[in-house]
Amino acid sequence: MITENSVEKFLADLASANPTPGGGSAAAIMGGMAAALIAMVCNVTLGKKGYEAAEPEMRAVLAECDRLRARLTAMVAEDVGAFEGLMAAYRLPKGTDEEKARRAVAIQSSLRRATEVPLSCARASAELIDLARRASEKGYLSVISDGGVGVLAAHAALRSAALNVYINAPALKDREFAAAAVAELERLSGAAATESESVYQLVRGKL
Amino acid sequence: MITENSVEKFLADLASANPTPGGGSAAAIMGGMAAALIAMVCNVTLGKKGYEAAEPEMRAVLAECDRLRARLTAMVAEDVGAFEGLMAAYRLPKGTDEEKARRAVAIQSSLRRATEVPLSCARASAELIDLARRASEKGYLSVISDGGVGVLAAHAALRSAALNVYINAPALKDREFAAAAVAELERLSGAAATESESVYQLVRGKL
Repeated sequence: MITENSVEKFLADLASANPTPGGGSAAAIMGGMAAALIAMVCNVTLGKKGYEAAEPEMRAVLAECDRLRARLTAMVAEDVGAFEGLMAAYRLPKGTDEEKARRAVAIQSSLRRATEVPLSCARASAELIDLARRASEKGYLSVISDGGVGVLAAHAALRSAALNVYINAPALKDREFAAAAVAELERLSGAAATESESVYQLVRGKL
Repeated sequence: MITENSVEKFLADLASANPTPGGGSAAAIMGGMAAALIAMVCNVTLGKKGYEAAEPEMRAVLAECDRLRARLTAMVAEDVGAFEGLMAAYRLPKGTDEEKARRAVAIQSSLRRATEVPLSCARASAELIDLARRASEKGYLSVISDGGVGVLAAHAALRSAALNVYINAPALKDREFAAAAVAELERLSGAAATESESVYQLVRGKL
C-alpha cells in the first residue's frame, strides 16, 4: 500500500517521471489531511472545560472525519490503480478488429474508473468543508487555526480531484455519464468556493 | 524525523489530540506536494519529442522545485520543534520575578521562531506558484493537470502558513517584527490569489 510508504518517499515518488502516484493521489492526501486536522480540533475540544455543550457535536463531526480519512487514504491507492489500469488498457494489442474492440472496451472501463475515483474524492472533500465549519464554530479556540488549514486543504483537494475528472471525461464514450460527472463537479465546486471562503474568514476572525 | 513516518501514521498523528503535528506541518507537506508535482511535470517533459525547446526551462524549474521540496520537507519537523519549544516555554516556572522574566524571554523567542517557520513556508509556496506557471505553460500536455494540482496545493500551503503566522503574531512583543511579518504575508497572499487562479485557468483551458 502506497500510504504505508514514508512521507519523504511518497514525495520523491510524486516528483519522479513515473506517472503514478500523480495529482489524483495528491488530491486524496490533501483530503486526508483535511479530515485529520478537523478531527484534531474535535479531539482537542473533547474534555476541555467550558466546551461541555459542544461535546455531542464534536463527537458527531469526529466520527465523520475518521470515516472520511479512511476513505480518502484508501483512494490514494485506488487512484494509482485506476491510472495503471488505464495505461495497461492503452498498451493492449490492436492488430485485429477483435483486439481493437477488446482494447476499446478496456479503455472505456478504465476511463470510467479513473473518473469515478476523483469524483468520490471531490464528494468527500465537499463533506469535509461542512465538517470544518461545524468544528470551527464550536471548537477549542487555541486550535481553531487547524480547522482553517483543514478547510483550505479540503477545498484544494476538491478542485484537484476536479482537474482529474476534467482530464478524463472528454475521452469517455458514455456521454451521459461524462456530462453528469462534470455537472456534479461544477455544482460541488461552486458551493465549495463560497463555503470554504466563509469558513476561512470565520477562523481568521477568531485569531 | 517526522517525515520518515508513513503517510498513514502522519495522518493519524495529525488527527490525534496531541498538539503536534498540526496545521503548520500540514501546510509544509502541501507545499512539498506542490514542489513534487511541478517537478513531475518537468521530469516527464524532459526527453519528450516535440518538447526539446522547453528543456532548459524545465531543467531550471526542476532544480528550484527540488530545492524547495527539500526545504519544505525540513519545515515539517521545524514547525513541530517550534511549537514544542513554545509549549515548553509556557511551562517554565513563574514563582519568582527572575523566573517570570526568564519565562517571558523564552516565550518571546519561541513565538518568534513559531512565526518565522510558517513565514518561510509561505515564501516557498509563493515561489512555487510562479514555478507552476512556468511548468504549466511549457510542460508535456498529458501531465498538465498535475501542474494544476501543484498550484492548488501551493496556494493552500501559503494560506495555511499564513493562519499560523496570524495566530502567533498578536502575542509578539516585538511589534515591528510582527507588523512586518503580517504585512509581508498580506502582500504574498494578495499576489498568490490572483496568480494561482490564473495558472489554474491556464491548466483548465488545456484539458
